[in-house]
Amino acid sequence: MKLAVVGAGAVGQAVLELADGYGHTVTAVADSSTGALDPAGIDIDSVLTQKHTDGTVGSQTLDAVLEGEYDALIEATPTTIGNAEPAFGHVQRALGRDRDVVLANKGPVAQRYEDVRALERESDGTVRFEATVGGAIPVFSTIEDVGPGNVTAVRGVLNGTANFILSRMTAEGVAYEHALAEAQDIGVAEADPSFDVDGTDAALKCVILGNVLTDAAYTLDDAEVMGIRDIPASALELAQDDGSTIRLIGEVDGEGVRVRPRLVDEHGTLAVSGTQNIVQVETTHAGRLNISGRGAGGRETATAIMSDLRALES
Amino acid sequence: MKLAVVGAGAVGQAVLELADGYGHTVTAVADSSTGALDPAGIDIDSVLTQKHTDGTVGSQTLDAVLEGEYDALIEATPTTIGNAEPAFGHVQRALGRDRDVVLANKGPVAQRYEDVRALERESDGTVRFEATVGGAIPVFSTIEDVGPGNVTAVRGVLNGTANFILSRMTAEGVAYEHALAEAQDIGVAEADPSFDVDGTDAALKCVILGNVLTDAAYTLDDAEVMGIRDIPASALELAQDDGSTIRLIGEVDGEGVRVRPRLVDEHGTLAVSGTQNIVQVETTHAGRLNISGRGAGGRETATAIMSDLRALES
Repeated sequence: MKLAVVGAGAVGQAVLELADGYGHTVTAVADSSTGALDPAGIDIDSVLTQKHTDGTVGSQTLDAVLEGEYDALIEATPTTIGNAEPAFGHVQRALGRDRDVVLANKGPVAQRYEDVRALERESDGTVRFEATVGGAIPVFSTIEDVGPGNVTAVRGVLNGTANFILSRMTAEGVAYEHALAEAQDIGVAEADPSFDVDGTDAALKCVILGNVLTDAAYTLDDAEVMGIRDIPASALELAQDDGSTIRLIGEVDGEGVRVRPRLVDEHGTLAVSGTQNIVQVETTHAGRLNISGRGAGGRETATAIMSDLRALES
Repeated sequence: MKLAVVGAGAVGQAVLELADGYGHTVTAVADSSTGALDPAGIDIDSVLTQKHTDGTVGSQTLDAVLEGEYDALIEATPTTIGNAEPAFGHVQRALGRDRDVVLANKGPVAQRYEDVRALERESDGTVRFEATVGGAIPVFSTIEDVGPGNVTAVRGVLNGTANFILSRMTAEGVAYEHALAEAQDIGVAEADPSFDVDGTDAALKCVILGNVLTDAAYTLDDAEVMGIRDIPASALELAQDDGSTIRLIGEVDGEGVRVRPRLVDEHGTLAVSGTQNIVQVETTHAGRLNISGRGAGGRETATAIMSDLRALES
C-alpha cells in the first residue's frame, strides 16, 4: 500500500524503516512542521538523515502531506487527550478522502470513539488501531478472532514504565523516587513521567478496549484511575512476605473501566517484569487467554501497524 | 455459513452447540458410520440426544454428508498419522467441490501438507487449521499477523496431558505412573496415553507449525521426539533444588522440529501448570510474544474453528 506517515518520532521512524520489507511504499511523511512527498516513494534514508541532523523531514508542509497521494494514513503523532486534536483532524481528512487510517495515537479512539466510527461509516476507508494498546501484542486481532461479543473482560499490565518502576522497587527494595530516577536515566521514563505513573496512559488503553468491547463511547472521564506514585517500598515488602507483589492493573468489564495498583501472585501470570506488558482476555467459551510481550518501542509498535495494514489488504 | 461437520466426538459436538451463536447453520453432520442432512439446518438438539443415546447421528451415510449442501467442511475426526486417511479424503472431496475446509484433525496438514496445499491451489476453497495447535490459543492467526517471514522460531508446551502429569509429579513428588493414573482417573489422559506422553501429539503440532513457517513439507518422520515416560521423580526434585522444573517443550526453528523434556525456570513463562498450553513466538522486529490458555477441550477447540470461519467470511 502507499502510506502517508504523520508523526516522525520513534514510531513514525520505525514505520519508515520497516515499510518496504512488508511490501509498502511511503509516499508522504510529515512531522509537526515539515513534510516530504513523492508519489513514487520518498527516499527513506535521506528523510531519516535529515530528521536526525536538522530536525525536519522535508521542505513541504503537513497540509500538503495530508492532501498527498496515499492509500493509508499512519497517525503516529503524540497522543493528546481532550478533543484529541490535531490527530482527530488528520483522521477526518483521510476518511473524508476515502482513505484507510491506522492509528498509533490513542487520542481519537479513546476520546472520540463515536465520532471516529461515524466518520468511518460515511467513508470507504477503514480505521484500525492495533498499535494503540500493548505495542507488539496482538490485542485487538485476538478480540476480533474470539469475537467481541464472546469477551467478558480484559485486564492486564498496559504501561511498561510503571511496571518497570514497580519491578525495580520490588527487586531492589528501593523507594519510588529512586526507581523513577533509574527509569529516567535509561530512557524508560520521561522527564515528566505523569502520563505513565499516574495511570493516564493505561487508562486510555482501557478506554479503547472498553469502546471496542461495548461500543459504550467511554472517554478518560469515565475511567477510575489511580497511579503508583504513592506506593511505599514497605507495601511491596509486605506483599512479598505474603507471596504477592503489586502491579498497575487496568481492567475493563461490564462494570466499566478501572486502573489501579493491585496485589497479584508474585509468580503469577500478571506479575510480568520490567517493561513487559500482559493482556488477559476472558472469553465465554474458551476460558482465559494470556498474551504478553513488548508493550512499547518504535519497532514493536510499528509491527502492530504492519499487521493492521495486512488486515486492510486482505 | 452452512457447515458440514464430520466427526461427532467432543469437538464435533461442541461445534454443533456453538455454530448458531456465531451465525452459522449446520446443514450436515456425520460420525464414523452415520450421518444427518438438512439444507435448512439440522435439529442440533435431536442429533446430540440421538448421539448420546444410541451412538448414531442419523439415518444417512458419511458419503451423503460429504456430497451434501455446505459452504465449509469441518474435519473433526480423530487424528491419524501415516497417510492421514480418512481425513485427507474428506479434505480432497470438499476442495474438489470448491468448498472451504476447517481442520481440527492434525493429520492432513502434518502428514500431507504439500498435497493439501496443491489441492487448495486447484480449488476455490481455502483450508484453515487454527484448531490443530494449542486449542483456544490463536497461534496461526498470530503468525499471520506477524507475517510467517518475520517469525524466527516457535516453541512451547503443546500437550496438556503431558504437562498435567509433569505438574503433578512436581507438586506431589510422585512417580510418573502415579501421576498418569491420576490423569486417567479424571479423564485428562486416555487409557492408552502413548500419543500424549510419547510426544507424538506435540510433535504433530510442531510439524504443522514448521510447515507454515518454512513451507518445508515436514512430516512426523522429520521430528526428533522424546516423551516423558522415563523421567524419574528424582529428576524433578533435583531440578526444583535449582529453581527449575521440567516441561515437555516442542520447538520449531531453522534447525528443524524437536520435542523433548527440557529444564525451564520454575517460575518462568514456559512453566505453565496443569493442562495449560503456552506458545512463544520469536519475531524479527518485535521480540518474543507469549500466548497461553486452554490447549484442549471440545468448546475451546470449537472456538478456534469459529475463528477460522470468521476469517473465511471476511
